Amino acid sequence: MLTVEFAEECVFLTNDIGRLVIIGGAEDKEGDCIILREVVRLAGGNQARLLVLTAATLEPQRVGALYRQVFAGLGAAEVGVLDINERLQAEDPMLVRLVENCSGVFFTGGDQLRITSLIGGTALFHALVDSYRRGVVIAGTSAGASVMSSTMIVDGSGDKEPAAGAVRLAAGLSLISDVVIDQHFAQRGRLGRLLAAVAQNPYVLGIGIDENTAMVVDGPEFEVIGSGTVSILDGQHIAFTNVSEVSPQAALALAEVRLHVLSEGYTFNLQTRQPKSHAGTTNSRNAKGGS
Amino acid sequence: MLTVEFAEECVFLTNDIGRLVIIGGAEDKEGDCIILREVVRLAGGNQARLLVLTAATLEPQRVGALYRQVFAGLGAAEVGVLDINERLQAEDPMLVRLVENCSGVFFTGGDQLRITSLIGGTALFHALVDSYRRGVVIAGTSAGASVMSSTMIVDGSGDKEPAAGAVRLAAGLSLISDVVIDQHFAQRGRLGRLLAAVAQNPYVLGIGIDENTAMVVDGPEFEVIGSGTVSILDGQHIAFTNVSEVSPQAALALAEVRLHVLSEGYTFNLQTRQPKSHAGTTNSRNAKGGS
Repeated sequence: MLTVEFAEECVFLTNDIGRLVIIGGAEDKEGDCIILREVVRLAGGNQARLLVLTAATLEPQRVGALYRQVFAGLGAAEVGVLDINERLQAEDPMLVRLVENCSGVFFTGGDQLRITSLIGGTALFHALVDSYRRGVVIAGTSAGASVMSSTMIVDGSGDKEPAAGAVRLAAGLSLISDVVIDQHFAQRGRLGRLLAAVAQNPYVLGIGIDENTAMVVDGPEFEVIGSGTVSILDGQHIAFTNVSEVSPQAALALAEVRLHVLSEGYTFNLQTRQPKSHAGTTNSRNAKGGS
Repeated sequence: MLTVEFAEECVFLTNDIGRLVIIGGAEDKEGDCIILREVVRLAGGNQARLLVLTAATLEPQRVGALYRQVFAGLGAAEVGVLDINERLQAEDPMLVRLVENCSGVFFTGGDQLRITSLIGGTALFHALVDSYRRGVVIAGTSAGASVMSSTMIVDGSGDKEPAAGAVRLAAGLSLISDVVIDQHFAQRGRLGRLLAAVAQNPYVLGIGIDENTAMVVDGPEFEVIGSGTVSILDGQHIAFTNVSEVSPQAALALAEVRLHVLSEGYTFNLQTRQPKSHAGTTNSRNAKGGS
């Protein structure tokens, strides 16, 4: 596998997996703030220069002020808020420089299509990708989590039986490839729509992140932090599916999906598609007896 | 494997898998009534003598009258409604005879603990099991579905992240063994609680049935009917889980669960734990190309 080396002692894979904090929404902002604290730490701790991007939300002022306060409280050196409301702004060299000069970017929640339609392909987007390749941490919650992947979920009902066309997809920001990410996963009963995405192309790994839970990606591996779980649907060995044969409204059928559910401290290798237990083994029954 | 033969040309396995219609709740009662029509058909069509057991519900009169009307409309010869409100009634030989003389039993929804606490171990229960072994079809919806198995889910929040102790279990009616059944599965986001049940003992197969969907069990196989899906969680090859190591409130971790999602017409063999596609193969990619 080809690797590219950078001055800052970071080694990146050519498939552009750098440092990401992908959050399932509703992360703690008042208590221990485990996830947002980790964002600050990865961005340099008390040296962190964070840029909060509020493009997704229709309440940029309120949401921007909230994250500014939380990140400042967690010890970040600087916290800027950037609201992009039209594509022209995302071409403004002054705003682009903000992205170039920060050590961490944070995408708020809202509507993922606002993020991609406003900044996809702009100078600001390219600056973001360059920063990411240099090792700048990119974090995002809810809609800001969905946009991370090459293909993203933009719509699909939760708490509904899986249907062949239960999910609407669009092109994401491509910071991480070969996965489709869903958020508020358990809380909104989104197994069905993620299964539909995986059935449509089992090459992509379906990743469902619960609220107040994040996957922290560093190179080919990610670790789970937070109070909930990350569910991984691996469709590589699907034996059969009806997804291409039935109408979009019809109930889905698919056999032989591998499902992993990981909680805090567990890791997963995106290249080998193997989860790892705390004990470090990938294939051991390590349950202890009761009493 | 030992089998027992009966006069009516039925061959049953000694593990007591007979004919069951296990319904995920909210089955259609006004349109095509595909599921309830199948209950009538299996019970003998226009010869069917159905007994509706309303023990689960606190509205036995309304619910009993509704099913009486629907089953009569679907052509059943006789529809009786039996409400058991205290255990003593379930010892009454006259009521027991009702069970002995019917060709199909239908458990309504409500609270599964009402069913088991009111009839478990009574003369009526034993008559029910005897009827079942003779080939009488036993159907149940919602709570009436949960009670079918040896171990049943009685509580656990939906739309919540999977937690080690997210599910409360109790002994069921044991008409089908080695499975745990959940209902309203997609509609109430119950993946987490079914995963918890499977993690606790991967020997049992977790089966989640969507609303207006049923698994029709005949011997070791079942077929899916209705508008939604049946999800099967097979934990036999779980590589690791934290279920015995963490507090009941802690997020669950488990790796290598096999997940199958089956829609109408697909079948599953409970003994080999293999799903079968329409094409009859268990391991073929039978997706057709697009256009």
